[in-house]
Amino acid sequence: MSSFGTKKKGNTMTSLHQIIKHIGPLDEGAMKAARARQDTLTKPLGSLGTLEALSVKLAGITGKPLPRIKDKVIVTIAGDHGVVEQGVSLYPQEVTAQMVYNFLAGGAGINVLGRLVGARIIVVDAGVKAELGHREGLISRRIAAGTADMTKGPAMSRDQAIAAIEIGISTLENELQRGVDIVGTGDMGIGNTTPSSAICAVVTGQPVAQVTGRGTGVGDEQLALKAQVIQRAIEVNKPESHDALDILSKVGGFEIGGIAGVILASAAHHIPVVIDGFISGAGALIATGLSPLVREYIIPAHLSVEPGHRAMMNYLKAKPLLDLDLRLGEGTGACLGMFLVEAAARTLSEMATFDEAGVSKAEED
Amino acid sequence: MSSFGTKKKGNTMTSLHQIIKHIGPLDEGAMKAARARQDTLTKPLGSLGTLEALSVKLAGITGKPLPRIKDKVIVTIAGDHGVVEQGVSLYPQEVTAQMVYNFLAGGAGINVLGRLVGARIIVVDAGVKAELGHREGLISRRIAAGTADMTKGPAMSRDQAIAAIEIGISTLENELQRGVDIVGTGDMGIGNTTPSSAICAVVTGQPVAQVTGRGTGVGDEQLALKAQVIQRAIEVNKPESHDALDILSKVGGFEIGGIAGVILASAAHHIPVVIDGFISGAGALIATGLSPLVREYIIPAHLSVEPGHRAMMNYLKAKPLLDLDLRLGEGTGACLGMFLVEAAARTLSEMATFDEAGVSKAEED
Repeated sequence: MSSFGTKKKGNTMTSLHQIIKHIGPLDEGAMKAARARQDTLTKPLGSLGTLEALSVKLAGITGKPLPRIKDKVIVTIAGDHGVVEQGVSLYPQEVTAQMVYNFLAGGAGINVLGRLVGARIIVVDAGVKAELGHREGLISRRIAAGTADMTKGPAMSRDQAIAAIEIGISTLENELQRGVDIVGTGDMGIGNTTPSSAICAVVTGQPVAQVTGRGTGVGDEQLALKAQVIQRAIEVNKPESHDALDILSKVGGFEIGGIAGVILASAAHHIPVVIDGFISGAGALIATGLSPLVREYIIPAHLSVEPGHRAMMNYLKAKPLLDLDLRLGEGTGACLGMFLVEAAARTLSEMATFDEAGVSKAEED
Repeated sequence: MSSFGTKKKGNTMTSLHQIIKHIGPLDEGAMKAARARQDTLTKPLGSLGTLEALSVKLAGITGKPLPRIKDKVIVTIAGDHGVVEQGVSLYPQEVTAQMVYNFLAGGAGINVLGRLVGARIIVVDAGVKAELGHREGLISRRIAAGTADMTKGPAMSRDQAIAAIEIGISTLENELQRGVDIVGTGDMGIGNTTPSSAICAVVTGQPVAQVTGRGTGVGDEQLALKAQVIQRAIEVNKPESHDALDILSKVGGFEIGGIAGVILASAAHHIPVVIDGFISGAGALIATGLSPLVREYIIPAHLSVEPGHRAMMNYLKAKPLLDLDLRLGEGTGACLGMFLVEAAARTLSEMATFDEAGVSKAEED
């Protein structure tokens, strides 16, 4: 896997600007070859359904007629949110840091599912409120001790928004030398369904109330408050719906920017990127706002319980692979989706053809 | 895993009669313990959705509060169908035998996905038309060289129907000593969507036309013919909708009976059984007709493209885990579902609790 990043700028090898320039369309030739091979494999035409379509998409993303999925990486990015002061979440803010420690100790859902699919989990601090200190396995790229309260002004500056995205870019690029055949995105940040719903409302144009959900499980009263808080943040900041950096800076989060960066860098490096649920969906909206071509590189893992997620998927013209009522985040759904992507790649590569197996074809062709 | 089969009867250790006697309800105590543990794990309550429900069901099936999924088995049963003479399939009948050879050589979809999830594939000949001979890895339990043409009389005798089910029972029981934590069902048999649709229509009461689909991919004209053939088979044989053995013998297939046997034996031995698509669904209808309790032990892997599959799932009050437009059979969908079952078991067992990880709980409980 080649890295075209050369300019060293802060901790970032490749700038957002450079990455966007390197994102192109899918490789039509590889897709055609994959499609042709599918039709020679020992099964009724099209009988592997979504797996076949996925295998063709993988060929287009990687530029390889027989894509291989071996080295798997989940990038889980953590950040805190000033808007939590408005009482939008069920959990205290210190849980963000506690869960990061849980990730590092291997006890969280993402660790269990990462082990199951054989993915390495990269944990990044993009701006947790508590000082996490030096911990083995933690990539510390703190922008600030959480975002500012977006009901009182922008969550972050435009420069911070770019820095957040570049955290995702450099994290992905730093992994390239260890091998990356597929990437999954993950998040941790108490309160982060609130900025995600705000981004969803601004980008998709759906009413705030329709794209605001219960997050970790708030009751009816807190849900109503949460929608009001999001509405106020949008009114106070007036994000420009066609300027992804404006949206990210005004009503976003550091981990959401980081996820957008992972997605953009994956597309630029021709690596399929499996996105998790609602927070990763917000990152995907930011990424596609910066480069519409990136949409083709995204593989949505599952449909989240959060009501805004369906609006995101419709906007991205994407059909998630799974629908399991998940709402945990961390990249857990991405791990499950990654398994299906590997199943798609493996069936394409490893199944025998009719000729190889000496199996008769259909009587009508 | 204990086997209660003692009486040796033909090749079958345990008779259908004995197996049915040993099927009981799920273990409520184990389910309660699993549910309680889920609520102590470091995630928002209920946030793993279907995986949590699945983990509780696994506890109920196995009787273990912390079920483990290690040894995985797919039983793929092959059989031919006399009704193919009526022109219901796109592929020539010899493909059944050719695909069995493909399974044994490791080149089919089921082999690829079995390797991916680490399941061993058990291939059984329950009545393929061609003589397959002695082949390494093939379990030969031939009842006949295919069923009779069900448009002219019963597909098989009632004794043959029992024998078909007992093939599934003994195959599963023979695997117990090698270790079986989970079973998946699979099928191979050119033309076998035809008897499956017939079983579906008789058991669910849905009109034949609504539960008849394109199978391996027939066109409109052949589809209409297929529905007529199924209708005629039902009219000629008049299967009794409350007598599963009558249905299996009159409009079933050897592999469908075998799958019913695998399901019944799994339930009797407290082993979760992941069923594949439409053909396995027909087997599940036969199995639940013989023992309604068996329904709780069944985990449907995916919703097939075959239109009758939804009617089957509704009848079984079951929601399949996946919806990937699959229609390959062999047990391929069961492999994918098995992965999700393992994910459910692993998250229940391996995730840290709030106390263990020192993570704060929600502010409202």
